[in-house]
Amino acid sequence: MEAREATATGESCMRVDAIAKVTGRARYTDDYVMAGMCYAKYVRSPIAHGYAANINCDQAKNLPGVLAVFTWEDVPDIPFATAGHAWSLDDKKRDVADRYLLTRHVRHHGDAVAIVVARDELTAEKAALLVSVEWQSLPVITTPEAALAPDAVEIHAGGNLLKQSEMTTGNVQQEIDAADYKIQGRYQTPVIQHCHMESVTSFAWMEEDSRISIVSSTQIPHIVRRVVGQALGIPWSCVRVIKPYVGGGFGNKQDVLEEPMAAFLTSKLGGIPVKVSLSREECFLASRTRHAFTISGQLGINRDGTLKGYSLDVLSNTGAYASHGHSIASAGGNKVAYLYPRSAYAYRSTTCYTNLPSAGAMRGYGAPQVVFAVESMLDDAAAALGIDPVDVRLRNAAREGDLNPITGKRIYSAGLPECLEKGRELFEWDTRRAECQNHQQGNIRRGIGVACFSYTSNTWPVGVEISGARLLMNQDGTINVQSGATEIGQGADTVFSQMVAETVGVPVSDVHVISTQDTDITPFDPGAFASRQSYVAAPALRKAALQLRAKILEHAAEILHQSAMSLTLTGGNIVLSDRPEDPLLSLKDLAMDAFYHPERGGQLSAECSVKTTTNPPAFGCTFVDLTVDIALCKVTINRILNVHDSGHILNPLLAKGQVHGGMGMGIGWSLFEEMIIDADSGIVRNPNLLDYKMPTMPDLPQLESAFVETQEPQSAYGHKSLGEPPIIPVAAAIRNAVRMATGVAIDTLPLTPKRLFEEFHLAGLI
Amino acid sequence: MEAREATATGESCMRVDAIAKVTGRARYTDDYVMAGMCYAKYVRSPIAHGYAANINCDQAKNLPGVLAVFTWEDVPDIPFATAGHAWSLDDKKRDVADRYLLTRHVRHHGDAVAIVVARDELTAEKAALLVSVEWQSLPVITTPEAALAPDAVEIHAGGNLLKQSEMTTGNVQQEIDAADYKIQGRYQTPVIQHCHMESVTSFAWMEEDSRISIVSSTQIPHIVRRVVGQALGIPWSCVRVIKPYVGGGFGNKQDVLEEPMAAFLTSKLGGIPVKVSLSREECFLASRTRHAFTISGQLGINRDGTLKGYSLDVLSNTGAYASHGHSIASAGGNKVAYLYPRSAYAYRSTTCYTNLPSAGAMRGYGAPQVVFAVESMLDDAAAALGIDPVDVRLRNAAREGDLNPITGKRIYSAGLPECLEKGRELFEWDTRRAECQNHQQGNIRRGIGVACFSYTSNTWPVGVEISGARLLMNQDGTINVQSGATEIGQGADTVFSQMVAETVGVPVSDVHVISTQDTDITPFDPGAFASRQSYVAAPALRKAALQLRAKILEHAAEILHQSAMSLTLTGGNIVLSDRPEDPLLSLKDLAMDAFYHPERGGQLSAECSVKTTTNPPAFGCTFVDLTVDIALCKVTINRILNVHDSGHILNPLLAKGQVHGGMGMGIGWSLFEEMIIDADSGIVRNPNLLDYKMPTMPDLPQLESAFVETQEPQSAYGHKSLGEPPIIPVAAAIRNAVRMATGVAIDTLPLTPKRLFEEFHLAGLI
Repeated sequence: MEAREATATGESCMRVDAIAKVTGRARYTDDYVMAGMCYAKYVRSPIAHGYAANINCDQAKNLPGVLAVFTWEDVPDIPFATAGHAWSLDDKKRDVADRYLLTRHVRHHGDAVAIVVARDELTAEKAALLVSVEWQSLPVITTPEAALAPDAVEIHAGGNLLKQSEMTTGNVQQEIDAADYKIQGRYQTPVIQHCHMESVTSFAWMEEDSRISIVSSTQIPHIVRRVVGQALGIPWSCVRVIKPYVGGGFGNKQDVLEEPMAAFLTSKLGGIPVKVSLSREECFLASRTRHAFTISGQLGINRDGTLKGYSLDVLSNTGAYASHGHSIASAGGNKVAYLYPRSAYAYRSTTCYTNLPSAGAMRGYGAPQVVFAVESMLDDAAAALGIDPVDVRLRNAAREGDLNPITGKRIYSAGLPECLEKGRELFEWDTRRAECQNHQQGNIRRGIGVACFSYTSNTWPVGVEISGARLLMNQDGTINVQSGATEIGQGADTVFSQMVAETVGVPVSDVHVISTQDTDITPFDPGAFASRQSYVAAPALRKAALQLRAKILEHAAEILHQSAMSLTLTGGNIVLSDRPEDPLLSLKDLAMDAFYHPERGGQLSAECSVKTTTNPPAFGCTFVDLTVDIALCKVTINRILNVHDSGHILNPLLAKGQVHGGMGMGIGWSLFEEMIIDADSGIVRNPNLLDYKMPTMPDLPQLESAFVETQEPQSAYGHKSLGEPPIIPVAAAIRNAVRMATGVAIDTLPLTPKRLFEEFHLAGLI
Repeated sequence: MEAREATATGESCMRVDAIAKVTGRARYTDDYVMAGMCYAKYVRSPIAHGYAANINCDQAKNLPGVLAVFTWEDVPDIPFATAGHAWSLDDKKRDVADRYLLTRHVRHHGDAVAIVVARDELTAEKAALLVSVEWQSLPVITTPEAALAPDAVEIHAGGNLLKQSEMTTGNVQQEIDAADYKIQGRYQTPVIQHCHMESVTSFAWMEEDSRISIVSSTQIPHIVRRVVGQALGIPWSCVRVIKPYVGGGFGNKQDVLEEPMAAFLTSKLGGIPVKVSLSREECFLASRTRHAFTISGQLGINRDGTLKGYSLDVLSNTGAYASHGHSIASAGGNKVAYLYPRSAYAYRSTTCYTNLPSAGAMRGYGAPQVVFAVESMLDDAAAALGIDPVDVRLRNAAREGDLNPITGKRIYSAGLPECLEKGRELFEWDTRRAECQNHQQGNIRRGIGVACFSYTSNTWPVGVEISGARLLMNQDGTINVQSGATEIGQGADTVFSQMVAETVGVPVSDVHVISTQDTDITPFDPGAFASRQSYVAAPALRKAALQLRAKILEHAAEILHQSAMSLTLTGGNIVLSDRPEDPLLSLKDLAMDAFYHPERGGQLSAECSVKTTTNPPAFGCTFVDLTVDIALCKVTINRILNVHDSGHILNPLLAKGQVHGGMGMGIGWSLFEEMIIDADSGIVRNPNLLDYKMPTMPDLPQLESAFVETQEPQSAYGHKSLGEPPIIPVAAAIRNAVRMATGVAIDTLPLTPKRLFEEFHLAGLI
């Protein structure tokens, strides 16, 4: 477990930031203070749709300690997009610019009309309460169906339909109709919130004239830089974003949330440092949520279990502002297309504005919702035909050489069948299935379920995939690494250290990744999202590491009067390739010569910026065994196991951590979490962690994971995505197990006692 | 004056940090605060030599708010050197390691035996006073002569002679003896302090396990990193040094002063941030001073003004610890060797320990002292022979093609004769000289003086000369620059911007130098000293700029389907080389394509680390016209002019500022400044800015400067050193003018009223 011992990918070395984090020394955004820092607090809308007809800031301005109050009249008249996507030279691929820093037309509960800056946080909060606003209501829309009604009030000029798209392979309807068995369903997923431990927080100041520095808890420092430049109408290079340690993001910090406001405020206040930090309550209302999807699906399957075809029609509710908007509904369909690639597939999606809090990116990016529908339908069909749920998936699962039905891209590594086989064995699927047959009567019933997923490893070809790395050798032969890819708690820095160590030929303990990023100097990379980082950063790191290694060997050749071609670097020593046991020169001595020889050498470094144009799918599945207490309407998970094909596993210990984290979030989405939003008023009833039920440790079962290691040939180290995948198949597996236990197919998440009661009552169980 | 308009070196663009500094936004070390920062204060010796026989820290430890008290018993038993020189692989070239963090054997007034850390500064100061020490005195040595006495007490084990060295060309004594006229003298220079505006201050903390970060007001961040590693016995890469804006150094911050202590304290206190900041009084006692030199010289000259030969014997007083020690006495002789290269020259120097505060590097690094002796002797000899002081210098001054008499290195650019000619004309030397003849009687007398210098452009071949630069293109086509060379107020970042702009082909306003350095990521360079930076950083900047330009043109060729060879970059646009008036593509559009084209390109960057093995001399002279009030013993400067050959002048406006600053410091050293140290007790009597007289604006005359631009062929942009030179010839010129006015040759600096009174009294004028 010691970093000291590890030398390559594939080893379970300790996180490089483990000690900093457990000792509390790791510095997050709120650990940074600046002399004279001031604090901003928003004035937010208590209604979900309407206008601030009138606003009076006099009382607030007169409160001692208040520096300024700004309203919608004071902010730049520049619409901007907040979504964290790489910029596109193609304007049709750009995010929707529908935001201003403040608005008179409020579109959701908690929308911001004004902001107060004061010398301390408490005064800012008090002053925000002193701003009096006269509200004028508009009709409130909370569902896509209402949004699309012909007479619906327009939430944004141009209408409530954000975007619609379709993709299809051949004549899907014909395939479904011709199948032996046909099923259809309507699936509904809730609005949830990311609930990362560290709140949304950033602060900004100006040092040099017209240059703004921002420290932010973000997944996407380089994108923040651009969007702040766009939102304020200043050159992008005049913005500098610093990312310290980050306490979780899960997609919420893949939006440019409060950085433009912090930058605006400091620019208006002579450059003083201004912090904009959201409370937990504000995070619920005014950061981002997971999109609620309503999915109508149909599926045709033959008696032998062959999935002939399936089609999905998705209605996605993006709330008040676009944020990632339609990208998520669209991506959900793309990412799942690899799962059963020999079946016909059609996917249609429609994203609408409503007066809900804005939905944005969240772990899985549409895939959990889509997989919930597909894997529920498939399971119900298999049950109807009496086919084992594992068998039906084995028959249809992606295999090497298959082509993606939409894009035609070839699948080079496909471990899903092995995942199903391995899971079936580890989980004792057959034994448990037999046992369940005796537990489907009475009050306490038992069921097992399984569900699969596919997920890509970055955003290509929808987005530009670019990553940069710079390596610098120190005098003691250790190596500093700057990567544009962003550590936000997932362990990126640790696997990057392993990649560099493996390729240069040094121990992991001799590699130091500079975790705090600074867009002025950190190599460019859009950031942490789309489970892209380990895949996309790898070729840049590897190329830079190979360059550094070559420079090291060239310098060694000069010192040793050898040909560089006869030398190699292993375990931190230069050796003759055919006498690896006999160290000629330590890397430390070589480094000292390079730095301090009077004439030869120089500081050894290497830098690369690499674009990636491959995007292989990862696969996996969840197995679950659970008990349902019919009277209490309560689900208890007895055992749960995720099995993943993410190619070569870079660090088994960290991989396990990622999987467990995703499973926990998946259980939350399946059984507990839901933002309760009044359907008439659009008011959020539970914007806090007391009333919004996240699972805590006592709510979670033991989480189990296993891997099927494939070697992905398109990948720099044989690996594929793993960050988001673990959450994806959990809900469908649980829902399928509940159906097996109770015979009731519940197609609306989460499966809370309240929902089970309604469904069991309808089904006559209660 | 607008940076916006400048595109190259040679233009007077505004400093890139001008607005940040005049608005007060530029952040210096003390502007950084950290949550939970604690403060350290030293317990210092009230005696100049002795032992702390006993120490009791109980009362201090019990004061509420005190975290810890450390004494000499608690610090690492590792001697270290504080001097800011590049490390050498040759152990004979390394600095003397004679320091520990704290000492029981105190060697100067203010030496440190213990240190207190408390939650606030006041408590730390109070607690330091509560530490009771029983002092045991040793004999105090204040002069080199006493230090070298056979029975002298040893200040350091091994004796008081730090080092002695000699260099000579041919038989100097014979040349002197054979000359028409022979003169000898004894010259004495005072102990002075740098008095930079920003005090010595640094703070340190630990974030990751075993890694220490330090923010410091230093000239030499990369050297601080090494020395802290050495002083604490930890790998150098485990130390990270951050250099914000610096409020002056002048050589004092070319020593590693308090950073090792700050690092030690945080390492002992669980990583909490600890600040070690010296008061002005402590700066006088316990940072560094300029070495007092006692120089015995002789010189032989022919009647026609030909300088046949001269020899100098230097006794240098380095005080209690070596710091730069003998390097300074030695360098003084080296740097002056280019001045009159056709004359025989011998230079012997001896550096001794005494019980004075430690002397270290200061602007001119030994040259002002040596030039004071040489230019006084030459002037006196010329006067005795009735030769015009300008003529005698013109006859002997270095000319193109001359060889350095010590090293044999050829002089490729030598503007000294033109400087003398230009100065003679601008200064109306001949008119003034004639006028003075009528003012050498009575109470108010007038004289004019001149003195010359030579000075090298870095430390080669004594030191390793290395510099690194990294350039990164932004999306808007602007360029970020990281240089290892250190902006400490002298304007380095501005001329670096001009160099990059000129070579890449963009306006200066499109180049942004990252001024805050971080040794984890800033390219390696030892720092700001030896007037080296513009010379040594230039090849790294130019090479990186050429690489970036080539990458830009390659990418342009790909976009435009042209050959890169037919394209060029001018004014921020890509053009065909033979149609420069017709822009094909802006750099901004090119940058956007490089970042965001789905497949081609990437972030464009370039990095270089270059070693320099040339070191051309800069030249120049001071002309002064002054009045002496015999009764008041007061010198009033009527006019003063420096004329410099520093090769191509990179930024005339900044160059003028450098010259004026050096002239002001030179006047301070000549007429005002002196640390008054009791010859018996070694106690410093005036360690503060009330009793130590620095010249202020009312004390200074109008400062005038002029340049003779040569083109140095060994230099990346034709330039040579300018940072230190302006101070060098001032004192001799003033002393020579006073002699002309009064007939009294005063060979001890400074020429305060007290000293003039003594000398005039001796000469019978009073």
